[in-house]
Amino acid sequence: MKVIKGGVTTPKGFKANGFWAGVKKSGKPDLGLVFSQSMCSAAAVFTRSSVKAAPIVVCQENIHDGRIQALIANSGNANCFTGEYGFTYARKMTELVAEELGIGASSVLVMSTGIIGRPFPYEKFKEAVPKLVRGLGNTKGASFAKAIMTTDLKDKQIAVSLELDGKLVTIGGCAKGSGMIEPNMATMLACVTTDAAISSAMLKEALLEAVDVSFNSITVDGCMSTNDMLSVMANGLAGNKKISSRNAGYRLFLEALTVVCVKLAKDIVLDGEGAERFFEIRVTGAETPQQAKAVAKKIANSNLVKTADYTDNPNWGRVAAAIGACETRATETSIKISFSVKKNNIFINADLGLGAGAAVVYTCDLTREYVDINGKYN
Amino acid sequence: MKVIKGGVTTPKGFKANGFWAGVKKSGKPDLGLVFSQSMCSAAAVFTRSSVKAAPIVVCQENIHDGRIQALIANSGNANCFTGEYGFTYARKMTELVAEELGIGASSVLVMSTGIIGRPFPYEKFKEAVPKLVRGLGNTKGASFAKAIMTTDLKDKQIAVSLELDGKLVTIGGCAKGSGMIEPNMATMLACVTTDAAISSAMLKEALLEAVDVSFNSITVDGCMSTNDMLSVMANGLAGNKKISSRNAGYRLFLEALTVVCVKLAKDIVLDGEGAERFFEIRVTGAETPQQAKAVAKKIANSNLVKTADYTDNPNWGRVAAAIGACETRATETSIKISFSVKKNNIFINADLGLGAGAAVVYTCDLTREYVDINGKYN
Repeated sequence: MKVIKGGVTTPKGFKANGFWAGVKKSGKPDLGLVFSQSMCSAAAVFTRSSVKAAPIVVCQENIHDGRIQALIANSGNANCFTGEYGFTYARKMTELVAEELGIGASSVLVMSTGIIGRPFPYEKFKEAVPKLVRGLGNTKGASFAKAIMTTDLKDKQIAVSLELDGKLVTIGGCAKGSGMIEPNMATMLACVTTDAAISSAMLKEALLEAVDVSFNSITVDGCMSTNDMLSVMANGLAGNKKISSRNAGYRLFLEALTVVCVKLAKDIVLDGEGAERFFEIRVTGAETPQQAKAVAKKIANSNLVKTADYTDNPNWGRVAAAIGACETRATETSIKISFSVKKNNIFINADLGLGAGAAVVYTCDLTREYVDINGKYN
Repeated sequence: MKVIKGGVTTPKGFKANGFWAGVKKSGKPDLGLVFSQSMCSAAAVFTRSSVKAAPIVVCQENIHDGRIQALIANSGNANCFTGEYGFTYARKMTELVAEELGIGASSVLVMSTGIIGRPFPYEKFKEAVPKLVRGLGNTKGASFAKAIMTTDLKDKQIAVSLELDGKLVTIGGCAKGSGMIEPNMATMLACVTTDAAISSAMLKEALLEAVDVSFNSITVDGCMSTNDMLSVMANGLAGNKKISSRNAGYRLFLEALTVVCVKLAKDIVLDGEGAERFFEIRVTGAETPQQAKAVAKKIANSNLVKTADYTDNPNWGRVAAAIGACETRATETSIKISFSVKKNNIFINADLGLGAGAAVVYTCDLTREYVDINGKYN
């Protein structure tokens, strides 16, 4: 398995497009589409927020049969807390795309990201969809990656290739993040494509495993979003023997999918709003892996840990306080804390001294720029 | 019941003192003492952190019999994560004070606040204790209030008087806060005194009720401390009939104690590190009061809510997202959110539409100054 240059159009049979449809005042891209030439096995994970954006609800319906062929995404408006119109428009987005592409509307996913609670600018998107479909290209993964950005400074893409049954299999992906980032069994907007042949059941299983150590292990500001979603589409054009059990092929595919998800998740942290430093927080010695992750998240979400200066004499008492606040059985005598710093990368290791549970969580620092960005963003 | 000017020495029979014992580099006061001329009924609440500072453990032992006569407190060093020496020194602090005052060491409480994990500067405090005791005065509540400050900009004091059985009863208090503030069944350092006659059992009951709506309803940065502690000492010198059941006197006393605790808790928020704006977050329509408080805390700890600009077109989507992240049954159709703004005071009302549970939580904004203060504080 190796990492290669690319994104969602790198796997065989995927095309994409993205451009400005007139919604963002900045004139930056705000509408994107990914399309597979053949029907895909598909799986997705969604925000666990009780306040779910309209597109989340529509996607949950459409992905029910595990078959998806296209994904339309917009930025600049979250289509959340938008009432009945929001749901109507989210469905209409899938219908518009389906009509232009000549496929069924239930084979289309729709993603939205942006401000919550503003009327959804459906008419502008409606006008743009025919042009969006006409412009689809098999080297335009970056156009799609840019179309889903909000306060992101950089687009986030990756592709990996691996061999399955002597066939070259490729996985590509892109994501957007920045603020309101603490995915919970889901993620920000992220889209993964692959030409691997794999059943939708096994794809879902692989996705859950990969997400656990990637998107569900990051936090920028501890704020879970209403629109978090990650989808993966597998069109089988690589020609490998279809993966339909937890066999050797599954394990190779899972390893590669995990690399894709971890890379995109880390990119989200590195490009967190105002971020200047990257934190890798490793908790060991917990009673369970779940406890380890909860403690690592508590440390990662401590504003005191995120603002501390680590260049000289790290203030590890703040890490100890965050551990204590988890109300586990860890005490002063059982806990061991160590630090290492390489340029802007800070590694915090905390051993709770209770058991064998371990987890790693990634986050970024809290800066004056985060405060500025979120005072202005509206 | 009325609020009067004063602090911990306003009730009859209490003396205090506070000065610089040479620990803080700034030369600001770092050692304080409160002493009652007669033995007090006493109650206290402590941090629920699993990492408890040494003085917390010593206080939990000493208050076990509900009888306390003095309280020594230092700032500049938390005496937390300081190993066996930390416990030895915390006990020695109570012994030093007891010897100078001619009382038993188990009648003395000890509080510490400051940096975690640094050797406790016992020798400097030891030298200072005789002078501290000699200087005790019955108008020196402010000296004590100043001695427990860390990054606080202002001292926090209050006194109230009420009539019980025709007798004038007074309650005084002071507190320190600033950063690492999200008390959980406890608080920052806070000290309340009263000349009311009340059993330690009823005092504990009143304290828990008052703390629930005051110190346990505030957050500055969502970071629970290892040293949180609030004590109340009642010496009975007011001469009222001793409160030993939930009678009319208890209810009057509880009302007054609640005023004291709410005032000190709000003062902590108003003086939160870098705070420029005060938030009152009222959640109604929850299934239970506990759920209401959990949702209000989630809103209050959202960095996105705390950094938003409320002067024009409030970004209420951030409040909706925080509610959603609580994973209650509240949905877009059940939730109602409203705002009002008066100068630097922001009132957020969120009705979940689920039941009759309600709670109010107080917090402050997250500013560039918070980031600066905590990058430098070490």
